[in-house]
Amino acid sequence: MTNSETIVALATPNGIGALGIIRLSGPDAITIANSVFKGKDLTQQASHTIHFGNIVDGDVILDEVLMSLFVAPRSYTRENVVEISCHGSAYIIESIIKLLIKKGARSAKAGEFTLRAFLNGQLDLSQAEAVADLIASNSKASQQVALQQLRGGFSNQLQTLRDQLVQFASLIELELDFAEEDVEFANRDQLKNLILQINKVIINLINSFELGNAIKQGVNTVIAGRPNAGKSTLLNALLNEERAIVSHIPGTTRDTIEEVLNIHGINFRLIDTAGIREATDTIEQIGVQRTMEKISQSALLIYVYDASQITLDELNQDIESLKDPGITMMVVANKIDLLNNEEIAALPHTQKEVVISAKEKFHIDDLKNKIYHAAIKDKLTGDETLVTNIRHLEALQKTEEALSRVLNGMDTVTSDFLSMDIKQALHYLGEITGVVSTDDLLENIFSKFCIGK
Amino acid sequence: MTNSETIVALATPNGIGALGIIRLSGPDAITIANSVFKGKDLTQQASHTIHFGNIVDGDVILDEVLMSLFVAPRSYTRENVVEISCHGSAYIIESIIKLLIKKGARSAKAGEFTLRAFLNGQLDLSQAEAVADLIASNSKASQQVALQQLRGGFSNQLQTLRDQLVQFASLIELELDFAEEDVEFANRDQLKNLILQINKVIINLINSFELGNAIKQGVNTVIAGRPNAGKSTLLNALLNEERAIVSHIPGTTRDTIEEVLNIHGINFRLIDTAGIREATDTIEQIGVQRTMEKISQSALLIYVYDASQITLDELNQDIESLKDPGITMMVVANKIDLLNNEEIAALPHTQKEVVISAKEKFHIDDLKNKIYHAAIKDKLTGDETLVTNIRHLEALQKTEEALSRVLNGMDTVTSDFLSMDIKQALHYLGEITGVVSTDDLLENIFSKFCIGK
Repeated sequence: MTNSETIVALATPNGIGALGIIRLSGPDAITIANSVFKGKDLTQQASHTIHFGNIVDGDVILDEVLMSLFVAPRSYTRENVVEISCHGSAYIIESIIKLLIKKGARSAKAGEFTLRAFLNGQLDLSQAEAVADLIASNSKASQQVALQQLRGGFSNQLQTLRDQLVQFASLIELELDFAEEDVEFANRDQLKNLILQINKVIINLINSFELGNAIKQGVNTVIAGRPNAGKSTLLNALLNEERAIVSHIPGTTRDTIEEVLNIHGINFRLIDTAGIREATDTIEQIGVQRTMEKISQSALLIYVYDASQITLDELNQDIESLKDPGITMMVVANKIDLLNNEEIAALPHTQKEVVISAKEKFHIDDLKNKIYHAAIKDKLTGDETLVTNIRHLEALQKTEEALSRVLNGMDTVTSDFLSMDIKQALHYLGEITGVVSTDDLLENIFSKFCIGK
Repeated sequence: MTNSETIVALATPNGIGALGIIRLSGPDAITIANSVFKGKDLTQQASHTIHFGNIVDGDVILDEVLMSLFVAPRSYTRENVVEISCHGSAYIIESIIKLLIKKGARSAKAGEFTLRAFLNGQLDLSQAEAVADLIASNSKASQQVALQQLRGGFSNQLQTLRDQLVQFASLIELELDFAEEDVEFANRDQLKNLILQINKVIINLINSFELGNAIKQGVNTVIAGRPNAGKSTLLNALLNEERAIVSHIPGTTRDTIEEVLNIHGINFRLIDTAGIREATDTIEQIGVQRTMEKISQSALLIYVYDASQITLDELNQDIESLKDPGITMMVVANKIDLLNNEEIAALPHTQKEVVISAKEKFHIDDLKNKIYHAAIKDKLTGDETLVTNIRHLEALQKTEEALSRVLNGMDTVTSDFLSMDIKQALHYLGEITGVVSTDDLLENIFSKFCIGK
């Protein structure tokens, strides 16, 4: 599929900067750029070269610029691309874009450059989505996951699964062609084994979403505990050594303030909460209720208690009431500076998991490592692919459902039904990389991109 | 003067965009970039070429990038320059810059790239300042003035004046060498003529500042008149046809709202005011006082009156009270839709200058042209250079003072005093283009630049 239109957009952020980059892509990118350029004949220049000169509108010079040429197919979009590096004035940028539109380009829609890269086979769909993820990445982990996806790690894995399924699908199709003769080209046991094997990989990918999403979005981490357990002191102690990369993020709901703590490249969104206790009045009840709500939305719960005060009964009662199968809980004994060694040794097993003094900053680094391991490392088995995109998750879930139908129907339904379910599984797998795509799907994906990408 | 350090900074604005450009400049720019690049040996590539590859920190890939190479002296700074086009994630940009610093670059200070361009003779000082003006330009006129200055128009004019003065200065110096012999190498009449001539040019430049500054900053334009003269209707009528380029600018003082109207490339900051009338109470008095204050800060005053109501006495009284030698006043007769042709013809001369109906939008385009001419065109004589920079204005004023001392002393003081004053004039002229410069002056100029330029 080729586009006859040449598109143009600012590729750098709006705002004050030394320079702005205006990007043109399409069959006429170079001739349009050349028509407003005084310096050289750009149509006679090699790909991947840079040329200094003026952008002119008739006799009027709009700016002194650098023109970077990328001749098709050696460009991001595989079309002719020109990048104009101009002075970073909004007025100048607007003037140049207007001039290029007058000369035949049109404004690019959000994500349209990357859409073209996809349509022209430069990237598959999951790689294209990784471009947006990469631009949005804000931690080492989210950047690495996006980069791996951009470089095709995920795509390759899906391609392997798809190839295996396609092979079997064609054997089943063959059976349909010879339906009257009742032959079985596709060995049912082999098919079963293959699908079990594929489904295992797919279920692993589905399960990786929780972690992938945590890496991409950050790990919602609630600090909870009784009043005066030292929750805020702990929050400060955790943030203290990383002040440079701490930021205040106003919550999207209810104006809560979150603090972001980066541990080994992962962002943890730390949320401090009101103390939990038996509510004695309505206002307190609301406070406790909100704490429980925040906990239910979190991935990691750091339960902190005052080791010098709490009774074993109270501790067990708290842990019991906070338990949630979907949330990882860490139990942290605080204020050990008030205990002697014997008392620390005497803490019951559950209370010894992590012993700290937030006030004296004892074992805070150890706690950070344990937070990281609790949320991330204990779930990572190595170099596996992580699913970070909810669209991919949904497609994988639908693939898994279709494959389960194949498995369940294997012995009871006819080849044409099996064939239909396998085709469905192939369809959903194909949607992830874009082997199968609809205009709506593409519109939906690329409209979330920024303009100029 | 050459710099041994290699500097690095983000050259594009902070914020979300498809891409960011990181700029390196200095002797080691290419080798530092090469040390983190996987793809090609950048040290073996030609100037003005672009190379795709990965930025790597050891084994870890930070991003897929394009590297643009500019080999000294064929670059903005005349040093080796590398521009890295990476994905526009703040995290990725920060990681790459940190890595480059680890490899030997250091963070560039504000304006340091342009400072180097100046120190290496690529630009003179007024051209370097024009770069910042160009980035800040927000209208066709301000962009054109900055571009002309960047392209050396102003510098050339100053150079000519300076050359003439230098020639005379050397003759005067010669007289000093032969002081005992009482010879006169420099003909006093010729010197006088030359200085008169130079001073005329300098005074023209000084006088151009008012207009140059208006072009650069926009023309402060106050709309004033009696209550119900139709001031706000006029404001709306003026803005109506240009809505696209109208913006609300919160005033820096007193939270006044200004509307910006662009006429033929010039920004007019329109300020609506409370009606002027005999104040009957304190609050009204304050309102009138504030109107008068705004008028005194403006460059152009549009006095509008209701032609169907006002008496000739009232009109003359208003015009008299608003007159200010420093402010251009336009008298606008409004509400002519309420008058018949005879009544319009009967308006006294001053009332016929501009006749409009803001409500019916009669003659609004004509009014716009007249506003433009009143503020700009009547003062422009052609292609003359406009001074837009207050530093240049001050240097020109000091030059003019020194030259006036030369003129006044010509017949009474000795050659050594003349020589001193001429040298002073040369010094101040030289400060504009940077022939003469001090570290403080440079620091002062370039610290106002943005980082990355």
